[in-house]
Amino acid sequence: MILQGQRLPTVVISDLSPLVEGGRYPTKRVAGEQIQIEADIFKEGHDVTVAILLWRPAHRRKWTEVPMTKLDNDRWSAPLTFHHPDRYEIRIMAWADDFLSWLHDFERRIEGGQEDLQTEIEEARVILNQTAIRAASERCAGDAEKIESLTTQLMKCPVEEVLDLIDTPEVRSLLARWPNRALATTSDQKILLQVESKAALFSAWYEFFPRNAEGLATRHSTFRDCLPRIEDAAAMGFDVVYFPPIHPIGKTQRKGKNNSVSCEADDVGSPWAIGSEIGGHRSVEPALGTVKDFVWLLNKAREHGIEIALDFALNCSPDHPYVSDHPEWFFSRPDGSIKYAENPPKKYQDIYPLDFHCDDWRELWAELRDVVLFWVDKGVRIFRVDNPHTKPVAFWEWLIAEIHAVDSDVIFLSEAFTRPKMMQVLGKVGFTQSYTYFTWRETSQELREYVEELTHGPMREYYRANFWPNTPDILPYHLQNAPPVAFKIRAALAATLSTSWGIYSGYELCENKPLPGREEYLDSEKYQLKDRDWNQPGNIKAFISQLNKIRRGNSALQSYANIAFVHADNDQILAYCKWSDDRSSILLMVVNLDPHHRQESMIHVPLELVGVKPDTDYLVEDLLHNETYTWKNSSNFVSLDPRIKCAHIFRIGEK
Amino acid sequence: MILQGQRLPTVVISDLSPLVEGGRYPTKRVAGEQIQIEADIFKEGHDVTVAILLWRPAHRRKWTEVPMTKLDNDRWSAPLTFHHPDRYEIRIMAWADDFLSWLHDFERRIEGGQEDLQTEIEEARVILNQTAIRAASERCAGDAEKIESLTTQLMKCPVEEVLDLIDTPEVRSLLARWPNRALATTSDQKILLQVESKAALFSAWYEFFPRNAEGLATRHSTFRDCLPRIEDAAAMGFDVVYFPPIHPIGKTQRKGKNNSVSCEADDVGSPWAIGSEIGGHRSVEPALGTVKDFVWLLNKAREHGIEIALDFALNCSPDHPYVSDHPEWFFSRPDGSIKYAENPPKKYQDIYPLDFHCDDWRELWAELRDVVLFWVDKGVRIFRVDNPHTKPVAFWEWLIAEIHAVDSDVIFLSEAFTRPKMMQVLGKVGFTQSYTYFTWRETSQELREYVEELTHGPMREYYRANFWPNTPDILPYHLQNAPPVAFKIRAALAATLSTSWGIYSGYELCENKPLPGREEYLDSEKYQLKDRDWNQPGNIKAFISQLNKIRRGNSALQSYANIAFVHADNDQILAYCKWSDDRSSILLMVVNLDPHHRQESMIHVPLELVGVKPDTDYLVEDLLHNETYTWKNSSNFVSLDPRIKCAHIFRIGEK
Repeated sequence: MILQGQRLPTVVISDLSPLVEGGRYPTKRVAGEQIQIEADIFKEGHDVTVAILLWRPAHRRKWTEVPMTKLDNDRWSAPLTFHHPDRYEIRIMAWADDFLSWLHDFERRIEGGQEDLQTEIEEARVILNQTAIRAASERCAGDAEKIESLTTQLMKCPVEEVLDLIDTPEVRSLLARWPNRALATTSDQKILLQVESKAALFSAWYEFFPRNAEGLATRHSTFRDCLPRIEDAAAMGFDVVYFPPIHPIGKTQRKGKNNSVSCEADDVGSPWAIGSEIGGHRSVEPALGTVKDFVWLLNKAREHGIEIALDFALNCSPDHPYVSDHPEWFFSRPDGSIKYAENPPKKYQDIYPLDFHCDDWRELWAELRDVVLFWVDKGVRIFRVDNPHTKPVAFWEWLIAEIHAVDSDVIFLSEAFTRPKMMQVLGKVGFTQSYTYFTWRETSQELREYVEELTHGPMREYYRANFWPNTPDILPYHLQNAPPVAFKIRAALAATLSTSWGIYSGYELCENKPLPGREEYLDSEKYQLKDRDWNQPGNIKAFISQLNKIRRGNSALQSYANIAFVHADNDQILAYCKWSDDRSSILLMVVNLDPHHRQESMIHVPLELVGVKPDTDYLVEDLLHNETYTWKNSSNFVSLDPRIKCAHIFRIGEK
Repeated sequence: MILQGQRLPTVVISDLSPLVEGGRYPTKRVAGEQIQIEADIFKEGHDVTVAILLWRPAHRRKWTEVPMTKLDNDRWSAPLTFHHPDRYEIRIMAWADDFLSWLHDFERRIEGGQEDLQTEIEEARVILNQTAIRAASERCAGDAEKIESLTTQLMKCPVEEVLDLIDTPEVRSLLARWPNRALATTSDQKILLQVESKAALFSAWYEFFPRNAEGLATRHSTFRDCLPRIEDAAAMGFDVVYFPPIHPIGKTQRKGKNNSVSCEADDVGSPWAIGSEIGGHRSVEPALGTVKDFVWLLNKAREHGIEIALDFALNCSPDHPYVSDHPEWFFSRPDGSIKYAENPPKKYQDIYPLDFHCDDWRELWAELRDVVLFWVDKGVRIFRVDNPHTKPVAFWEWLIAEIHAVDSDVIFLSEAFTRPKMMQVLGKVGFTQSYTYFTWRETSQELREYVEELTHGPMREYYRANFWPNTPDILPYHLQNAPPVAFKIRAALAATLSTSWGIYSGYELCENKPLPGREEYLDSEKYQLKDRDWNQPGNIKAFISQLNKIRRGNSALQSYANIAFVHADNDQILAYCKWSDDRSSILLMVVNLDPHHRQESMIHVPLELVGVKPDTDYLVEDLLHNETYTWKNSSNFVSLDPRIKCAHIFRIGEK
């Protein structure tokens, strides 16, 4: 019988938000990013309820208290901003407050004209006395004395002056320090909040194949040759350079150019077919140099403000040392041979998948964790994870927790292009950032709906979108044989619709030649070295540099969910506002989605959102083109000719 | 480290529905009412996943399995219908199925033109052998033999005939009986399902004051005098008669007529001021008779198909025995006297509220439970609970669980007219039915939105609306001095929009006189006896009887959430369809909300929903007026003149 147990809750506290799957997974924020905590809080009767939020780092005992404010319909709220990356725990406590309930009741009696109030004043005396005792018992003699003195004044005070004496900010604050929480209720639900460093949210990625750093089809570049490419990425304003796998590439069943099953003697093979007699995931391809060379490059890059991200790809070539040392980690066929990867009728003979549920799964998982720790130990802070949706979700939840137990600031980017719920759960179980469907969202309606889903739905709490216009695997149809301005448009969208974006090198050169009928690049770097002039005429490096510069200089572009689409009469024009939490930075982006024709439109600026008064002139300063316009009221005209400019990034200011 | 623990989940199973607050409270259904269970279920890779639903009565160990079906976007589903009231527990289990994964893979190889399939057939042999071993180990020699024989056939079978041999309903069903669940995952989440008797969902209530049963201002009726009134309620088709409190009424501070603070010698007092020197909540007002008389009436009523519901009102008059026996259960003032109820500046000197959080709360709560058990023991099955929102929510959760542990079929109706979230949580913690805002929803938009919220939002899972056009406390403005047809309109809406409805007696006589400026009745029965002719001319008893008869005869009106509003061009016309789960009963209600004028409209019947083919004549039979029309296609004309008829209840049939 419950009656034998603890005192039951006196206040209903429910529907805490934001929660991810009811609290099964942590909610995410980065340092400095606000979170608005809300809950339903109410109790029976007419008492005045007080609610506070309690938070602590998950590994500490001591709680910090933050007062909550009542909204309408029994919903309460409090904002929180954490500045130190950590895992936090948030609960809510509420109680019917003795003093405030008495005060509310007393005020209504006065208003109702009740004359004899001696009993009520006597009740206040009792409440004050108990409050003083609580203060004294916590050795706060100062407060106890103040409350005792207040009590003395109260007992001598004419009835009509009681409220003047007792309903002051000072008294409320004094008494609020010593509330009677004997009947307080603490929420069963708690919010787990994962606060990560700002780099988890705000980053610009540049991917290149280190073996092709010099842009020579005839010479395999080394780590030592990569520095100019990294300096170029830094000059374009990128802060992450991501390398496809740098490990020894298998020889058995090596793929030839354009994914051919037959391979020439000098073919370099796919870096994702990892492992040779030289080593596996802890080694580097000798043609690139040594682990020491890599570490040299990592540190050099850091001098330029660049982190190098490694690819964590859990494929093994038939030559990987795991195959001979641990055949039990792979799938085997009835004849005892090891199974290569297949997605019938497709065959991937150069890759053996691992069996994550094999009998020795514990050893396998621990080894894979130790591989990540090996590179973390070498100084790698960021991993782009290849196809995580083809490995068990539970493995990633475990692995990321294990790594974060050692270093909570390691960033994992999920490269899952698959069904929505799998992509989402990978964000929930701990991936810091995730690839998205942005690559295939083209029309204004598609982009609007998708960004709304990412930023204003449940995904906002756990999924950080990294927008890529291209990858080595994807040259989307809309960029195939497209003019340079199409590349500018998609870069402008990616760089301003989300806080993280990236390009695969060659994009800045507007490389646009596909394998016919496929979304793949012709002569893909995945299988060969290529000649390239990194500064070839017609490149859009200056435009990209300008985008990244604007991103760094305007905190509006560093906030994830503060985005509102702006109505444009012409649906070839996509317009949207972004703003910083403190509203010190407010931008309006206007993009012509059509790379071929001038598009004009009235757009309808939400004046209140951008802090502009009706009938007042305001300035919009195009940060992309250094032009300033004077606008008035909501509806204004824009005209974007892709031969001249494809987008505005307006900073909105007062005249 | 997690690796030391149990094997981790191989399948992601999440977002089970329907859940109430993530499973904190049970989901509700009644016997025979279908529930659709859904969940997100998916895993990495290309294996074929199989999911089943597991259910059991919460107090049993053995699970029953039900196969689930895949919808789109990784959502799975299975319908369940329970026929025995009980608390059930529902979980989900899923796994990658060896045989089905093999079959899927094999089919794709055949389609892809692969010729050498000996390895694959050998794999099938291994899978079949293991399946046969599982069958044999469960002592199902028959299945084991069948599988062994299948294996023998398989090994002799030409490749092109393998699918004909192995992909048959018989083989799938045989192998599905012995799946390999070694890596199966069971959901952490579970659905608690409270299945109640049908009376929890479908009921028609009639409230009268037993002391006024004979309709005489000069004579206090007794329980023995109540039988004619109960027979009249039964004749009108009601199945619950609800009595305001029947306990001794206090004398101290007794309220006079029309809630006057001064009371005449012969004033009967408010039945909600419970308790006198004669007794409290276990006693009956002597003027009504004895507990034995009440039990006699209860049994007589049951002979007429009527359950008598008691009012559970936790107020005490100053004369209640608790006041002298347990002063510690009440709130006291600084001078030691007991506090009467107040909502400043209003005072309720005839009522002492209980202090549910007093030091002796355990004894108080147990006593109140025992009061309910006392009446359950006397045969009472239904309680209407007075103002539950002024007592702690935790008390109700505990009390209802305690009662249901003794008798799970006891029904509690929550009389909370207060803020939405408090009303909702009372439904969540166990109240079977709840009063609603229907009483104040007048326009078609208000009614539509409110019914949508009740039936198609989260409330559908735990809140059972009981629609009352009036109560002894509420004569809504739209019925004040209104014509009889206004009473018919509100009755028709209440009786057909929800599965439970009720009226407070006098409604059938169209009593419409308010206290001026208030929503209260003039000369309210709460404080006095009244003269009444229960068959006075102009009454709408025949109309009400017809409504209840139609409710009983058409299962569409016994389903709660199967409702769809139908567009009417004239918003004075409210039209809606209801249907039974099996679609054997489909009704279309059309109500003129305007009691003063004829209203005409085109209404647009959703043909697919009502099972009518386009361009085909169909019959609509008005069950209220015994008239049949032939309609065709969606748009049809209706005309309702309140002087003649205010509503249609159409049964839709084929021509």
